Amino acid sequence: MYEFRNDYNSVGHPKVVERLMDQVHTVYPGYGFDQASDRAKEMIQEKIKRDVQINFVPSGTSANILSLTANLKPYEGVVAAESGHIVNDEAGALEAVGHKVVFVESQDGKIKPQALEDYLAQDHDFFNILPKIVYISNSTELGTVYRKAELERIYKACQDHGVYLYIDGARMGSALMSPACDYSLEDLAGLCDIFTIGGTKNGALFGEAVVFCNKALGENFHYYLKQHGVLTAKGFLMGLQYQALFTDDLYFENAKIANSMAMKLAEGVKEMGLDFAYPAESNQIFVSLPEGKLEKLAQTVTFEDFGPLEGDRECVRFVTTYHTKEEEVQGLLDSLRSLVG
Amino acid sequence: MYEFRNDYNSVGHPKVVERLMDQVHTVYPGYGFDQASDRAKEMIQEKIKRDVQINFVPSGTSANILSLTANLKPYEGVVAAESGHIVNDEAGALEAVGHKVVFVESQDGKIKPQALEDYLAQDHDFFNILPKIVYISNSTELGTVYRKAELERIYKACQDHGVYLYIDGARMGSALMSPACDYSLEDLAGLCDIFTIGGTKNGALFGEAVVFCNKALGENFHYYLKQHGVLTAKGFLMGLQYQALFTDDLYFENAKIANSMAMKLAEGVKEMGLDFAYPAESNQIFVSLPEGKLEKLAQTVTFEDFGPLEGDRECVRFVTTYHTKEEEVQGLLDSLRSLVG
Amino acid sequence: MYEFRNDYNSVGHPKVVERLMDQVHTVYPGYGFDQASDRAKEMIQEKIKRDVQINFVPSGTSANILSLTANLKPYEGVVAAESGHIVNDEAGALEAVGHKVVFVESQDGKIKPQALEDYLAQDHDFFNILPKIVYISNSTELGTVYRKAELERIYKACQDHGVYLYIDGARMGSALMSPACDYSLEDLAGLCDIFTIGGTKNGALFGEAVVFCNKALGENFHYYLKQHGVLTAKGFLMGLQYQALFTDDLYFENAKIANSMAMKLAEGVKEMGLDFAYPAESNQIFVSLPEGKLEKLAQTVTFEDFGPLEGDRECVRFVTTYHTKEEEVQGLLDSLRSLVG
Amino acid sequence: MYEFRNDYNSVGHPKVVERLMDQVHTVYPGYGFDQASDRAKEMIQEKIKRDVQINFVPSGTSANILSLTANLKPYEGVVAAESGHIVNDEAGALEAVGHKVVFVESQDGKIKPQALEDYLAQDHDFFNILPKIVYISNSTELGTVYRKAELERIYKACQDHGVYLYIDGARMGSALMSPACDYSLEDLAGLCDIFTIGGTKNGALFGEAVVFCNKALGENFHYYLKQHGVLTAKGFLMGLQYQALFTDDLYFENAKIANSMAMKLAEGVKEMGLDFAYPAESNQIFVSLPEGKLEKLAQTVTFEDFGPLEGDRECVRFVTTYHTKEEEVQGLLDSLRSLVG
Repeated sequence: MYEFRNDYNSVGHPKVVERLMDQVHTVYPGYGFDQASDRAKEMIQEKIKRDVQINFVPSGTSANILSLTANLKPYEGVVAAESGHIVNDEAGALEAVGHKVVFVESQDGKIKPQALEDYLAQDHDFFNILPKIVYISNSTELGTVYRKAELERIYKACQDHGVYLYIDGARMGSALMSPACDYSLEDLAGLCDIFTIGGTKNGALFGEAVVFCNKALGENFHYYLKQHGVLTAKGFLMGLQYQALFTDDLYFENAKIANSMAMKLAEGVKEMGLDFAYPAESNQIFVSLPEGKLEKLAQTVTFEDFGPLEGDRECVRFVTTYHTKEEEVQGLLDSLRSLVG
Repeated sequence: MYEFRNDYNSVGHPKVVERLMDQVHTVYPGYGFDQASDRAKEMIQEKIKRDVQINFVPSGTSANILSLTANLKPYEGVVAAESGHIVNDEAGALEAVGHKVVFVESQDGKIKPQALEDYLAQDHDFFNILPKIVYISNSTELGTVYRKAELERIYKACQDHGVYLYIDGARMGSALMSPACDYSLEDLAGLCDIFTIGGTKNGALFGEAVVFCNKALGENFHYYLKQHGVLTAKGFLMGLQYQALFTDDLYFENAKIANSMAMKLAEGVKEMGLDFAYPAESNQIFVSLPEGKLEKLAQTVTFEDFGPLEGDRECVRFVTTYHTKEEEVQGLLDSLRSLVG
Repeated sequence: MYEFRNDYNSVGHPKVVERLMDQVHTVYPGYGFDQASDRAKEMIQEKIKRDVQINFVPSGTSANILSLTANLKPYEGVVAAESGHIVNDEAGALEAVGHKVVFVESQDGKIKPQALEDYLAQDHDFFNILPKIVYISNSTELGTVYRKAELERIYKACQDHGVYLYIDGARMGSALMSPACDYSLEDLAGLCDIFTIGGTKNGALFGEAVVFCNKALGENFHYYLKQHGVLTAKGFLMGLQYQALFTDDLYFENAKIANSMAMKLAEGVKEMGLDFAYPAESNQIFVSLPEGKLEKLAQTVTFEDFGPLEGDRECVRFVTTYHTKEEEVQGLLDSLRSLVG
Repeated sequence: MYEFRNDYNSVGHPKVVERLMDQVHTVYPGYGFDQASDRAKEMIQEKIKRDVQINFVPSGTSANILSLTANLKPYEGVVAAESGHIVNDEAGALEAVGHKVVFVESQDGKIKPQALEDYLAQDHDFFNILPKIVYISNSTELGTVYRKAELERIYKACQDHGVYLYIDGARMGSALMSPACDYSLEDLAGLCDIFTIGGTKNGALFGEAVVFCNKALGENFHYYLKQHGVLTAKGFLMGLQYQALFTDDLYFENAKIANSMAMKLAEGVKEMGLDFAYPAESNQIFVSLPEGKLEKLAQTVTFEDFGPLEGDRECVRFVTTYHTKEEEVQGLLDSLRSLVG
């Protein structure tokens, strides 16, 4: 079976697990107030080259919801694209903490800067919530990557209206290593108030690093984590993992492998004349297939069914990771070719 | 430094980490719907010998709060001892999901059955919440262990009033292996509606097994976990860890070591004429020291300061674990002796 | 100035205020457990001719949110039309109590039965909430009225999937007295689980009667009201008002007047060749005007601006009430004529 | 029957109801943005002689909960006495909006300033909530009234620790008109951040005026009211009522009558040798009766049973109001005399 269902399907990168094994007899203080976490934060900070606050959070949903809402008043809300992870994939987590999301127009998973500018410029009366933070993901849920000019324009609109910008970086490695990306991790810290560097989908067992570029927003954040059961008792586990990920650029190397496998896949798909449902820019490739082929495909490949497209087509998602092998990509391409050839 | 501050201060038992390392190249489905989790549940179920539902949850606070509240109406609340973990150690997590806790009298961390019976028998009018679930911990936050007769009486009071009983087993291993314990894991399943088997404090990197003896209460529980960001993407990680913990009774053996070290410590404490603040029944030993000794003690030992006691005394907590060594206990006893000798 | 902005712009019907004045020296028990409330419930029940539970709630938003969510588990949510009052007009009230709303396709403010059937028949996995209650309003926020066949089909879809149906009757009087309506208050009780009979917009100072046709859903509802600060201390005030409204059918007579004024207005609008933005079926009339006319209109008439329509048109809403006079309708028509004539 | 159960048992003061009747044909804008509300706020402000923000809220619980929590971060909480209304009488309303209350020692319903100072000076680590606002009531739930020196000391402790002070004035009239009170409404505005002037228990049909002395705390408060269904559509109703209450000092005159009746009652109670359970300082009088007398008392008097006291005594509460008559007080005294004579 060729495995392309997702990028959180294995324990973690061997170097990450080895780091845990190495430290199996060491005793650490609890709740992330330990030397391993401190060292990991330093290593990330060295890349960012800016005075930021970093907190490790064990899951992507927790990182999103708590970062978004820690600073909201009850009647303030979140602005997002309808394809946002917080909208469709977190089981009402945002609403469960009392906040509402409003939508602005997006394309291929990316908020349109013009639409955001227009929305924020409106009068926001008390019949609905006050917009206070904008959520975008990068790479997006549809595999696309924001360009620097887009982020600049979105962030400016936010700042003009006293609104914060949060970037969900569950797949930040793949975004930054994308051929479509024209900025670095360092640049990113100047383009938003908060962003995350996702570990779970790029080599860690679990863990997201939340980076508060706007440090005021991170004040007492560990209280809020504790309240949600996600101030990990053994916080040093994330410190150790991020140490491994930021040693010899493992985090970026993992993403490069995933992306290069995705680009090989994309080339093959293109060569056989298939269309992409969304631009192929990172480690998630969305292909438009003729109807009725999924069952056969599922016999040799794991993938995610993204539902019907116009014109009797179906959308499937293939995800590559740091452990995807070239022969697996070939296997998948062969399977596709046998379907549509 | 002799380490007695807590039982969540190291990565995990080597056999648990090895199990993860072994599987580093295996691909698993996400969100706990995998063969490793299924096998771990079977292994636990074999011990329980009863048809139960098991869910793995990454943290103790999440396990508590979500198990307690998944089935509550907005105006229903929780009954607990004032020393309960949900009261003092979870940063308002219960209130954050909208529910209130009311207290009944307790002794040494254990709810008094009579006090519970009296409270539940009262008229509960609409000026306050309706009690719907009772929270107890075993072993308790003060190191004590419920006896079978106590649990039976508490559970009967609950059942008589249509109220559920939840047992927080963050330290269930230590409770069950306690010399004071007169029941088994199997018995426990008949003494409450929900209980947990805590991994984090007994050899796992992270993870609590929530056991729904009353299976109706566990319906769709994974939705609620997802909504709280704790339906772990790599759920198989907890499956693998619990496999290791329930192979050759590692879970119980770990607890036995912790308890035997605690009992050695307790003996030594007793011999030197010191009093216990609470009965020494499990891996947490609470000692009453003369005032003004903590600073010196802190030079050689890590421990938790539990504040002043009556009569110019101070309470300190020492916690043993599966990796506590006999020479560490000796070292701690020597340090104590030099303080009070 | 001709007043057509809304139907909650005056103290209340004189007969309602008189009823309060009459009783100014009577002493009543608190929180709605009084003889005046009991009598009012009997009077309503006599119209419904079915064993129901009735609770009085002081505001429409409270009636909606609390009725919708009193019986939901944390991961269950609400289904509604995008034009629903709970979506756009309650400042995130539903989300504030932790619940999410999902949309199904609607037309002119009414949920399309087919769209609801399709949605409920889908698989609802844990990435999003579980639908558990459907919210519709009648008359709708766009002035339209459900037909009996529509309600039957919607309610059947709900029942087929174990989902409840709630009808927001903030303007139930106008709905039932509409020429488009083919059912009675009595019929309504068989067409849903919960509905409300709105007082605020039809003669009361404040107050909505929540009718639980499915009485199990109303269990302990007063606890939930108390928790939200809306179990009115002087609950008898609503009892007295509903007594007045259900004496000599004042509630229905008020609605008839409002509707007949609206129909006169609609006729006049039609005669002068203007289009309706939505079908004119109750006491809210939505007119499509050429762009750029609102400022002038606002000099003689109060109304609500409903924003741009396609083709350089603008939508305005005119609302009639029990105290709208024929000469006011004439005045409004004259104003419109002078704009577009 | 002599009515002493509570002070919210009649429609409202005739002058208040008359004011509503007078205006029955006037048309007002909605949601409190009307000239009647503006005028009422001016009238209150003239008494306070300070630039404050005033919002009308229909119920005491809503006024409390929303004022307390509008400015709290999720991990911040409320400090109160265990006898506080928000603790025992609001059905978990505070917890329902996600916040926890912690207790400091109190006497006769009043927080002890020393206990508050000590608590706020402690280190507040992330195992529990961060205290951010202190709740006191005046007069208290036990009928006592804070002295100026107490309020000054409490407010100073708050300010020293960056904590807000909120005073629940559901019975503020009775507090200010108490013989024990050594400050005015004007003074009060310098002694806290937010206080309320309760209407419901002193002549209004419903309504509390929330006064933000610290205006920053009131920013966008109407959004939060709207979200909780308590931004009354017909907000002008509260404006009209407060106009009546602040015309010719009706608010204060009502309280004076209630207090003078209470003092007459207290004198009679004292004369017959009965003890007070709490100091008799306002319109709530708590009497200690020998056990077993309540059933007989209930044959001629309505009152509230406040449960057992030490030494086989029972506590009963009698409440006077602006409509209590001298002969009712005599009747109650006669009934008491016949019980214990």
